[in-house]
Amino acid sequence: MSTPELRADERIDQLYSQDIQIIQSPEVFAFSLDAVLLADFAKLPVRATSQTVDLCAGNGAVGLFMSHQTRGQIAEVEIQPRLADMARRSIALNQLAQQMTVFEGDLADVNQWIPKDSVDVVTCNPPYFEDLPDSQKNPNQYLAIARHEITTNLATIVQTASGLLKMNGKAYFVHRPDRLLQLLQLMSANRLAPKRIRLVHPKPGKEANMVLVEAIKDGKPGGVRFPAPITVYDAQGHYTPEVGALLYGNR
Amino acid sequence: MSTPELRADERIDQLYSQDIQIIQSPEVFAFSLDAVLLADFAKLPVRATSQTVDLCAGNGAVGLFMSHQTRGQIAEVEIQPRLADMARRSIALNQLAQQMTVFEGDLADVNQWIPKDSVDVVTCNPPYFEDLPDSQKNPNQYLAIARHEITTNLATIVQTASGLLKMNGKAYFVHRPDRLLQLLQLMSANRLAPKRIRLVHPKPGKEANMVLVEAIKDGKPGGVRFPAPITVYDAQGHYTPEVGALLYGNR
Repeated sequence: MSTPELRADERIDQLYSQDIQIIQSPEVFAFSLDAVLLADFAKLPVRATSQTVDLCAGNGAVGLFMSHQTRGQIAEVEIQPRLADMARRSIALNQLAQQMTVFEGDLADVNQWIPKDSVDVVTCNPPYFEDLPDSQKNPNQYLAIARHEITTNLATIVQTASGLLKMNGKAYFVHRPDRLLQLLQLMSANRLAPKRIRLVHPKPGKEANMVLVEAIKDGKPGGVRFPAPITVYDAQGHYTPEVGALLYGNR
Repeated sequence: MSTPELRADERIDQLYSQDIQIIQSPEVFAFSLDAVLLADFAKLPVRATSQTVDLCAGNGAVGLFMSHQTRGQIAEVEIQPRLADMARRSIALNQLAQQMTVFEGDLADVNQWIPKDSVDVVTCNPPYFEDLPDSQKNPNQYLAIARHEITTNLATIVQTASGLLKMNGKAYFVHRPDRLLQLLQLMSANRLAPKRIRLVHPKPGKEANMVLVEAIKDGKPGGVRFPAPITVYDAQGHYTPEVGALLYGNR
């Protein structure tokens, strides 16, 4: 394994279940459980000719965590140069340069790199919060852009995802439940038929704080399914077996 | 308690948690867990001037099970004369004639009895299945009408519910998850803003087979919440404590 160059604020974290090392910085970007859950929820074709694109890729966590699923290509699209650079170095660190590519720029311009109607799977862990005039944003611009719709918004993201996908290609999103209806409306307006919705509850008895959505481009409308929800912590505050296995593997 | 007249195929069942007796017939209509869950999910104003309407009332189960929640009026709208008759006799059996009224007829004509924009709460446990040319229907016409959209359909029901409600009145529906998106779209097209969606899973680890939706007429769009789901049976096949309490009370 090559030794990566780390900046002063950076560290190498590990997702043990996938044996993936990832360069992070609490001052810039660090992946959270959302990325782990999205990478597990998404189902990638194994074949070497398949193409997957992760939009709003951040430091590349989702793509790295999905890489074991496929022999195909995974592209990461990230607008923040500092984060794209971290993603590139993590790809090198995990010796995945043959499989993974980082495109640095606005996802609205993605077709300069990847043709329309060419992609099998699009994943996205988007900024969760609307950029309202009165919304409190992190003064740290890296984190503000990752959390708030400053450089993009959900409508553009869903339209871009749909444009990339082949017919019957699949889109996977993680978002907050309070924006699920908006996400579903945008999908419906952009030829994406939701097929599977999985809620994530932080603890037993608590309302959901995340939701995972699978949609099929040009899929038949109707017939959406809701698998058993994910509960993150048990009543004692320990990870549930399902989430523990996603983080640490079946130990 | 008055002694009801029962037809040969009828029996009196009891919802112990509510101390409600209800006339049922397996050949015609018998309430199921859906009605119990909907009656619990709905929140009725206590005040005596409040008006609640249950559409697709069947033998009146939902209205009867909600009656303890309010001092206000509850109207039951049912198109099948035989079922409306059972509902009337159950109302008498429970001495609720001062509080409950049965209107027998098509819900599309409901405004002949109840004015538009006058109702605080509308509940509905509608027929779950579309009346498609190739759909298998029960040869028993009573059950076929209760299960399939033969005499009405979801679009008419949602439009009727919205028309009845006052501004900020609440609609409560139970339906199958595979029709949730259609229900949400119809709500959105009929001034109903979904606020709370609760999934019902038959067992731990199984996908949802029912969904409860609360919507507010002319409510602000966005901000829908997903409370912890209901799980009906535990892994051993016994009712979970929550569902057991809804059926039998806290014994």
